[in-house]
Amino acid sequence: MSARLDPCRFFPADPRQRAIAAELFAGIEHLPIISPHGHTDAAWFAQDGPFEDAVSLLLWPDHYLLRLLYSAGVSLKSIGIEPMDGSDGVVETDRRKIWKRFAEYYYIFRGTPCRTWLDHTFLEVFGLDRAFGPDTADHYFDTINDKLKTPAFRPRALFERFNIEVIATTEHSIDLLQHHEAIAASGWKGRVVTTLRPDEVTDPDHEHFAASLRKIGELSGEDTSNWRGYLRAIENRRAFFRAHGATATDHGHVTAQTANLSPAEAERLFAKVAGGTAQPAERELFRAQMLTEMARMSVEDGMVMQLHHGCWRNHNELIYRRFGRNIGGDMPMQAAFMGQLKPLLDRFGNNSDFTLILFTLDETNYARELAPLAGHYPCLKLGPAWWFHDSPEGIMRYRRQTTESAGFYNTAGFNDDTRAFFSIPARHDLARRIDCAYLSELVIQGRLPIAEAAEVAKDLAYHLPKKVYKL
Amino acid sequence: MSARLDPCRFFPADPRQRAIAAELFAGIEHLPIISPHGHTDAAWFAQDGPFEDAVSLLLWPDHYLLRLLYSAGVSLKSIGIEPMDGSDGVVETDRRKIWKRFAEYYYIFRGTPCRTWLDHTFLEVFGLDRAFGPDTADHYFDTINDKLKTPAFRPRALFERFNIEVIATTEHSIDLLQHHEAIAASGWKGRVVTTLRPDEVTDPDHEHFAASLRKIGELSGEDTSNWRGYLRAIENRRAFFRAHGATATDHGHVTAQTANLSPAEAERLFAKVAGGTAQPAERELFRAQMLTEMARMSVEDGMVMQLHHGCWRNHNELIYRRFGRNIGGDMPMQAAFMGQLKPLLDRFGNNSDFTLILFTLDETNYARELAPLAGHYPCLKLGPAWWFHDSPEGIMRYRRQTTESAGFYNTAGFNDDTRAFFSIPARHDLARRIDCAYLSELVIQGRLPIAEAAEVAKDLAYHLPKKVYKL
Amino acid sequence: MSARLDPCRFFPADPRQRAIAAELFAGIEHLPIISPHGHTDAAWFAQDGPFEDAVSLLLWPDHYLLRLLYSAGVSLKSIGIEPMDGSDGVVETDRRKIWKRFAEYYYIFRGTPCRTWLDHTFLEVFGLDRAFGPDTADHYFDTINDKLKTPAFRPRALFERFNIEVIATTEHSIDLLQHHEAIAASGWKGRVVTTLRPDEVTDPDHEHFAASLRKIGELSGEDTSNWRGYLRAIENRRAFFRAHGATATDHGHVTAQTANLSPAEAERLFAKVAGGTAQPAERELFRAQMLTEMARMSVEDGMVMQLHHGCWRNHNELIYRRFGRNIGGDMPMQAAFMGQLKPLLDRFGNNSDFTLILFTLDETNYARELAPLAGHYPCLKLGPAWWFHDSPEGIMRYRRQTTESAGFYNTAGFNDDTRAFFSIPARHDLARRIDCAYLSELVIQGRLPIAEAAEVAKDLAYHLPKKVYKL
Repeated sequence: MSARLDPCRFFPADPRQRAIAAELFAGIEHLPIISPHGHTDAAWFAQDGPFEDAVSLLLWPDHYLLRLLYSAGVSLKSIGIEPMDGSDGVVETDRRKIWKRFAEYYYIFRGTPCRTWLDHTFLEVFGLDRAFGPDTADHYFDTINDKLKTPAFRPRALFERFNIEVIATTEHSIDLLQHHEAIAASGWKGRVVTTLRPDEVTDPDHEHFAASLRKIGELSGEDTSNWRGYLRAIENRRAFFRAHGATATDHGHVTAQTANLSPAEAERLFAKVAGGTAQPAERELFRAQMLTEMARMSVEDGMVMQLHHGCWRNHNELIYRRFGRNIGGDMPMQAAFMGQLKPLLDRFGNNSDFTLILFTLDETNYARELAPLAGHYPCLKLGPAWWFHDSPEGIMRYRRQTTESAGFYNTAGFNDDTRAFFSIPARHDLARRIDCAYLSELVIQGRLPIAEAAEVAKDLAYHLPKKVYKL
Repeated sequence: MSARLDPCRFFPADPRQRAIAAELFAGIEHLPIISPHGHTDAAWFAQDGPFEDAVSLLLWPDHYLLRLLYSAGVSLKSIGIEPMDGSDGVVETDRRKIWKRFAEYYYIFRGTPCRTWLDHTFLEVFGLDRAFGPDTADHYFDTINDKLKTPAFRPRALFERFNIEVIATTEHSIDLLQHHEAIAASGWKGRVVTTLRPDEVTDPDHEHFAASLRKIGELSGEDTSNWRGYLRAIENRRAFFRAHGATATDHGHVTAQTANLSPAEAERLFAKVAGGTAQPAERELFRAQMLTEMARMSVEDGMVMQLHHGCWRNHNELIYRRFGRNIGGDMPMQAAFMGQLKPLLDRFGNNSDFTLILFTLDETNYARELAPLAGHYPCLKLGPAWWFHDSPEGIMRYRRQTTESAGFYNTAGFNDDTRAFFSIPARHDLARRIDCAYLSELVIQGRLPIAEAAEVAKDLAYHLPKKVYKL
Repeated sequence: MSARLDPCRFFPADPRQRAIAAELFAGIEHLPIISPHGHTDAAWFAQDGPFEDAVSLLLWPDHYLLRLLYSAGVSLKSIGIEPMDGSDGVVETDRRKIWKRFAEYYYIFRGTPCRTWLDHTFLEVFGLDRAFGPDTADHYFDTINDKLKTPAFRPRALFERFNIEVIATTEHSIDLLQHHEAIAASGWKGRVVTTLRPDEVTDPDHEHFAASLRKIGELSGEDTSNWRGYLRAIENRRAFFRAHGATATDHGHVTAQTANLSPAEAERLFAKVAGGTAQPAERELFRAQMLTEMARMSVEDGMVMQLHHGCWRNHNELIYRRFGRNIGGDMPMQAAFMGQLKPLLDRFGNNSDFTLILFTLDETNYARELAPLAGHYPCLKLGPAWWFHDSPEGIMRYRRQTTESAGFYNTAGFNDDTRAFFSIPARHDLARRIDCAYLSELVIQGRLPIAEAAEVAKDLAYHLPKKVYKL
């Protein structure tokens, strides 16, 4: 029952190729972590308090775990998730019982990246030495909870232990960034920067759109009831975020549609949208225009722009109504870039100071659209394999399908994109190892000398994310 | 010219990984075959008569072979396929000549699964010991035909030799299941269950729709000219099939579109459809609604529901008109699930007693739609790689693209889905070997301990299909 | 800094499998090159003059290089590309400086096929012995320019050294084929045939459509202002091209849509199109009908038909306006075949004397549409992996996704499809090696005996392209 991480995990089978991969990995294993896009909570680093316990830390916030447990017939209430709608049924409150239920179902994660991240967290971060499962659930529960009480498991100590050089959190446009301010004021040397995610002021279908428009009006002292004032208010928020370390914005849209309206058309459209009279097609056109406006602002203020699109949020309505967001019911959609991005590219595509990083949940775009686009337009960079594809097979497919048309140097290195702080080392370790596995293939097939591969490995793990995100 | 099957066939090249795959395979090689979806003829097992000869057994019924031979310029008449339309040209009747023509063209099957299945059938089932080709065609023809006359090559003897624990056939809703009754009455212990395939009563575009409605009305004693009676008649047929061992229904639709009409809307739609006045969009809506009705019935009676969609039947009209169905002219189509299944999932998706097994001919859905859906909704399971993808590369792609988001335990193990009875051992052997090859990769890459991989291998080969199909 | 090509390049890592690949490759390495589709300039072989210098030979005409350099922020003017619109900025004219700029950015090509082709060209064709980069740029520039002055580097000498048995160029319908005539008249034994690319007379959206209609009218002595005369004029050009060695036509369309209009409908449509009054949908219908007309002519005159579609030409409008075509701004589009080709296939699909070779930039069609279609219709053959996919990973994906449904014998071998004459040996070498790598997998996995694999390797490298293209 003893367990430890395989030091050659994710490396190819052939011994000679494995040695190459191991050699490349040795050169990057201890490089600091650059985490330019993610969802950790700035309050952790501001307050540096202890994490509560195994269940609330490792299980509840992780929609990757919740979705697969739910698919196996494990009810959310049985693992302690409280419904918001007062629907019937007992909610389990005994955390040890919840943890043991999770352990019982640990076998369903075989072959998934969750298994990899968790094993790493357990064996490496918590120093456990046997496999997780029903027989060891109690031991795990006690050990983890005990360790969480120690100073070594406080957020800042872990930040340092994880060798994080810089981490970006994600905040909405109306956030006051008090935690970031507190971190800065604290004298702690950890670098935690924010990222502006302004969907609530650019998407008329967002539940808080109207309120958010008012709010950024107040915050900026601009009149957001007219187009000019609205744009200035956003520019103001961007400046505020930059003052708190932000180098990037992030945009979550259903489609990648962009538009290129004349100022007069945009002004008329905004009036309808702000007045709440816009039709669905007009609201989509507004989102499209706002991507182009955001690009224009990026050209002006130098912020890197990220586009995450193609997610069908809350596909399972019943679960959404009962338990809210981020519970495992988000799904990928078919995506397309070629025509959708053209209006934006027609305006800013040839500007090599502008950076637009693209992500997708639809891998059919890698070789057909994303790599060819990034392999031509100076402004475009490819974000790493995202979400459902942030996994050994997913990252390998990403490299195989993008490298030949875009090269390595039109990619942005790795993002962990996670709120699971304890999994950050696991995720970077995995991504670095898969990149080395891919590079070892180029080396053993005579496609790249090992000295150049070693340089690429360092660039992917460290220099590219730092450079592309201007960190 | 001597030939035998490679005992390490389909295993990875690296010796250490190969040994892992072989060890995993040794643990499942002799497990009984569970064949929960297929198209063998129940009459074979009811009557237990000898098969006729090599050509009528191995060549003519196999649309996989006919399509590739036809693509190479081999006319169907030249291999003895009789046109139905009295069109000109001599039809070859000399079976030895036909067999030799097949042998001449055997080289075009290099690299295809047909080659694998046939080599297995020849060398393993018939005990031949040299390679098939023009030089050995006579020897093959004589040996096969001689063996087919012996008791060991009768259907029941082979069923036992193939170590089949249970096999499911597929019958239409108006079938009287007399062969299944005869098998049950015969005292033979082989388990042959039926599966209900009711397309002729749920698809208004089916050539026998109107007649089938009348027929199930007669069989069930229900008035199928109204919506309620029609639904009761189908429920009656489901009960009849369950009484003959059926645990599942199967649905062949062009799209995966489902609908969720109110009873009154459904009733009005049925009236139009039954009256023959429904427009194409209404007929599609009716099919969509019937998938949801079938799901409702499954929730009530516990039958497992299978959806095979995305096939363009009889794409080659000339060949269809002349030679009829299943001659090799069926083609895959682009498929989509995310929005199409939503109406059904909104009603029954959260029911973990309900089982809906999904198949696709469009692999772009594996990672983007199917695995994420099955990795969340409790009712969904993924059927194995289907038809054009039931092959070494196809099965490997399936595992690579579904496991990370759905895990192994949201899949339904293997289906052979074949009418080629003699190929059943070959198909299960192939699927089990590829699964072991995939698992050996997880093991050697440190992603799964071998003891757990061995458990997964057994589950995929035996326990999962048995459990998911309730066999 | 010394460098040489790895003799085992592109072969698999496992030593036993690598030995199989090497054995298969040894059997085809020295087979003559059949180049049935490409864009070399017939004038080179007609005039046999020396190539100018490294920059104008290797950099400027290669849109693969220009696109990636441009994506990295290298302006086209800085590498000597002259804008056509008189826009501002200095155009670099110092070729040595341009060459050094290229060398500085050579690292961005790591992992791309360009790197492979260039390394082969440098080390093998030019006999250089150290790696290309900033430190060796001068040495490269001087060595290449010196060699280009020698007789051994003249077009005909290289044609012979490259062991080209036959090469096809591509000419438009109004070309007079004087260079092909000159080659024939010269007594030189190199076989350079033409291919007819008649887009300018079949695509009403082509910028030279009206002028080209008049021109082929003059050339053929037909009245191209009416449908019958127009068709006869095209038939006349086909005969003219055949007289200059052409065995094939090539068609570059945005979609694969075909149509099957009655003669009267086609005549009416042509009148609108020729008169310039056709709407966009009518112009698309005309292109669709012309594909079917071209198929009809192919059935009559035996010319092989090629369809290259799914390219969004000049996606980057600014660059197109400033620098013209083929500068790196062409992009792949989503493609579809199943319904689009049906009108053509309904007429000629069952004709096994007719050959239609299909290419795609959308790999999702390989397994879902192209391989199933080619694995049934006698007229269809699959062209090799095209353009963005003409690479180690791209070719391997092509084999993996097409072989199981179409076999090897419904494919047309390799096309280099290049204007980069010096890269032709590299491209064929690469394709042959990847095919051997794929075959070595079939062999070591017990899916194909090595003797048969060796036959397939020879067929793919030599016999199939020769046979399918009737060369």
